[in-house]
Amino acid sequence: MSTQKRQLRLGAFLSTSGHHLASWRHPEAQADAGLNFQHYKRLAQTAERGKFDMIFFADGVAVRQRGQGGDVLSRNGKLVHFEPLTLLSALSVVTENIGLTATVSTTYNEPYHLARKFASLDYLSGGRAGWNLVTSATEAEALNFNRENHMEHTLRYERAREFVDVVTKLWDSWEDDAFLHDKESGIYFDPDKVHTPNHKGEHFSVRGPLNVARPIQGYPVIIQAGSSEDGKNLAAQTAEVIFTAQQTLAEAQAFYADVKGRLAQYGRSPDHLKIMPGVFPVIGKTEQEAKDKFHRIQELIDPVVGLNLLGTMIGGFDLSGYPLDGPVPDLPETNGGKSRQKLLIDLARRENLTIRELYLSIAGARGHRQILGTPEQIADQLEDWFVNDGADGFNIMPPLLPGSLDEFVDLVIPELQRRGLFRTEYEASTLRENLGLPRPVNQFTKVADRQVANV
Amino acid sequence: MSTQKRQLRLGAFLSTSGHHLASWRHPEAQADAGLNFQHYKRLAQTAERGKFDMIFFADGVAVRQRGQGGDVLSRNGKLVHFEPLTLLSALSVVTENIGLTATVSTTYNEPYHLARKFASLDYLSGGRAGWNLVTSATEAEALNFNRENHMEHTLRYERAREFVDVVTKLWDSWEDDAFLHDKESGIYFDPDKVHTPNHKGEHFSVRGPLNVARPIQGYPVIIQAGSSEDGKNLAAQTAEVIFTAQQTLAEAQAFYADVKGRLAQYGRSPDHLKIMPGVFPVIGKTEQEAKDKFHRIQELIDPVVGLNLLGTMIGGFDLSGYPLDGPVPDLPETNGGKSRQKLLIDLARRENLTIRELYLSIAGARGHRQILGTPEQIADQLEDWFVNDGADGFNIMPPLLPGSLDEFVDLVIPELQRRGLFRTEYEASTLRENLGLPRPVNQFTKVADRQVANV
Repeated sequence: MSTQKRQLRLGAFLSTSGHHLASWRHPEAQADAGLNFQHYKRLAQTAERGKFDMIFFADGVAVRQRGQGGDVLSRNGKLVHFEPLTLLSALSVVTENIGLTATVSTTYNEPYHLARKFASLDYLSGGRAGWNLVTSATEAEALNFNRENHMEHTLRYERAREFVDVVTKLWDSWEDDAFLHDKESGIYFDPDKVHTPNHKGEHFSVRGPLNVARPIQGYPVIIQAGSSEDGKNLAAQTAEVIFTAQQTLAEAQAFYADVKGRLAQYGRSPDHLKIMPGVFPVIGKTEQEAKDKFHRIQELIDPVVGLNLLGTMIGGFDLSGYPLDGPVPDLPETNGGKSRQKLLIDLARRENLTIRELYLSIAGARGHRQILGTPEQIADQLEDWFVNDGADGFNIMPPLLPGSLDEFVDLVIPELQRRGLFRTEYEASTLRENLGLPRPVNQFTKVADRQVANV
Repeated sequence: MSTQKRQLRLGAFLSTSGHHLASWRHPEAQADAGLNFQHYKRLAQTAERGKFDMIFFADGVAVRQRGQGGDVLSRNGKLVHFEPLTLLSALSVVTENIGLTATVSTTYNEPYHLARKFASLDYLSGGRAGWNLVTSATEAEALNFNRENHMEHTLRYERAREFVDVVTKLWDSWEDDAFLHDKESGIYFDPDKVHTPNHKGEHFSVRGPLNVARPIQGYPVIIQAGSSEDGKNLAAQTAEVIFTAQQTLAEAQAFYADVKGRLAQYGRSPDHLKIMPGVFPVIGKTEQEAKDKFHRIQELIDPVVGLNLLGTMIGGFDLSGYPLDGPVPDLPETNGGKSRQKLLIDLARRENLTIRELYLSIAGARGHRQILGTPEQIADQLEDWFVNDGADGFNIMPPLLPGSLDEFVDLVIPELQRRGLFRTEYEASTLRENLGLPRPVNQFTKVADRQVANV
């Protein structure tokens, strides 16, 4: 195995009827996808057939575009959907190897609940859980949790750092070999191998221990997506996977070098953080077929929806007063997702796009990289970034579900496998092992015990 | 169907290796049951084979007996287990008809999260979710959620009442027929049929709407277990099932009449709240075999565990200073579960029990009713309470799992069916319909619409 090429990591980003904004209107779309378990079961099993490392669910704790008028809102097919931890738990039963990952916010949750749910999912799935840590970026979420407005960016990240600290302490409450189950003596566990974290910090006071054993993976895999300075530092300190949005190889390389370069100061190896940009693939037998496919789905975007999407993505501005076919105006910085606003404005300036052109250009991939082409062309693009230090793998965001995922698994995966870039079988039973990540040492295990264990 | 006898309701209370305190030590026990999905899958499928209305998981957000010395703690086989919403979600995939219910506290949760998780489970399961509302009764939970001590009893119930109000508003965010999925026009839902609760109260400020559609059942079935005055009033106002602990028919009848009598003031029918006392059955081919079985498992209780259990159940008192074979001392009232303390002290006084006898008498059923006997004798006892206004059904708490549940399904259920007291097939696909409960009307639906719908 040591002579094997470095392997691509792949995540399947599964969003209702597809990542494209108008996907639900497509003739082949599952229009009620968000609350249809059979739909998600089929997707998860397809991704597993393709040997994806993991499936991934984005999430938020609000109707995301609340506050828009009914005319915009009523055209949105993504507002209602399963809560991801319940959905992943159900999917754990109908899959065997694929990682099960989802977004949960540190701003509107308590560490005890979060540590417990992911530990529980890790046991249900035999070690396949992963947590995408976000700090949330919308005021709509604040208003559902007793707050008047969204917590300020820096404060959110301070809370997130402490949150991870508490959660990992809770996951370490029980040592791996704490449970004896000794029916004869009546001793269920070794009391020296349970630890009470007794955390008292700035944001949290949490005694513990957790009422779930240490997760099978030690810790579920920790994923992050922030690209701000705070986000990159938090990721360098705590994340094992980063989902990121990068448009060009040069940008991707800069981001890759930047984040990997931050790991040493936390005593971490660059190999132990996998950087996976989002990719929105439109696959055709020919390049023209791919373009035609894309055009057909773009035509399904109502202008009122496109304009609203753009306004939301650049930080909550109402752009309806500006001419649709005029330039994108200069905008002040916001408290929301800073990095995403900058990304979009840069794109408009670089390609000299009008407001309409900008919303059309992002409505598909929404800030992520679009690749239109044949399976070989798509594989070429992925390989290019992968071998040139732009990515360790990709988070694949199929435009239409289930169709575009089927195509990726049936056409692109075999091409990647032929090139020796991607597995043909799972290497192991846990997500952590499949990703090639080390199992964390329990922070409460005595150093003497660890040395003995290492002998 | 209208000439059919009134039918018993049955819940299966599934607790790790069984409800008996020492169950995990039994030779046939699944010692690692708490985190073993295959174990729970077998239990849920067995209960469904027996046509139980529902399975039920108790829960708490702490290691329950934290603060005890290692000698006691290390003998407890129930400290680590799955988080129940993730477990129920997984079980929804391997069952088809049985209700899926669990405890979640209103004291250490937010209404938006809770409404969302249960709505999600309701969609995963096709309308089989139920929520057992508790206000929590242990300081250990407070210490895991930024609090110095447990919230006072009356305040907990005030919060619980408002919590239910917010949760039902969130479940009503979308009308049942809100979603159009009209691909042609691009209209996904009717904007007049989504409502923003905008709740501002004493304990919660929650804008909404929920990002899950209205649950299949309207609301998941609401269960409660409190027996204090506050608990009974909250149940009369909001609950559809009560799990309760009653030792004698006279007590059960008094509780039944009391709670059912409170419904009218909330405009509710007595039929719309099902009262289900807990029953701990030990089943033998003969009465003697049942007694021998019980004796064998009682012998597995270590005295240090029994004493600690008793101390916890009467409100956190340390009884180790009192003689084991002496009388139970008088104790001051606590802020914890008032009704349980009274129940136990009454039992000791009534039967003149020593401390040791009291802990042995409760270690099995822990405050619930023990019935030892043949399948016929057990059916007689259940029928007696059922036909004499002591119960609408029972929450069956098998001493050993999976064995005691298998016996109940194979031996007692057929006897109940022969007597015409229990279903031989599920009547419907939702828990609410199987229990014979009405589907709640959406509180935001315009009265005019309702009248049209009723014509």
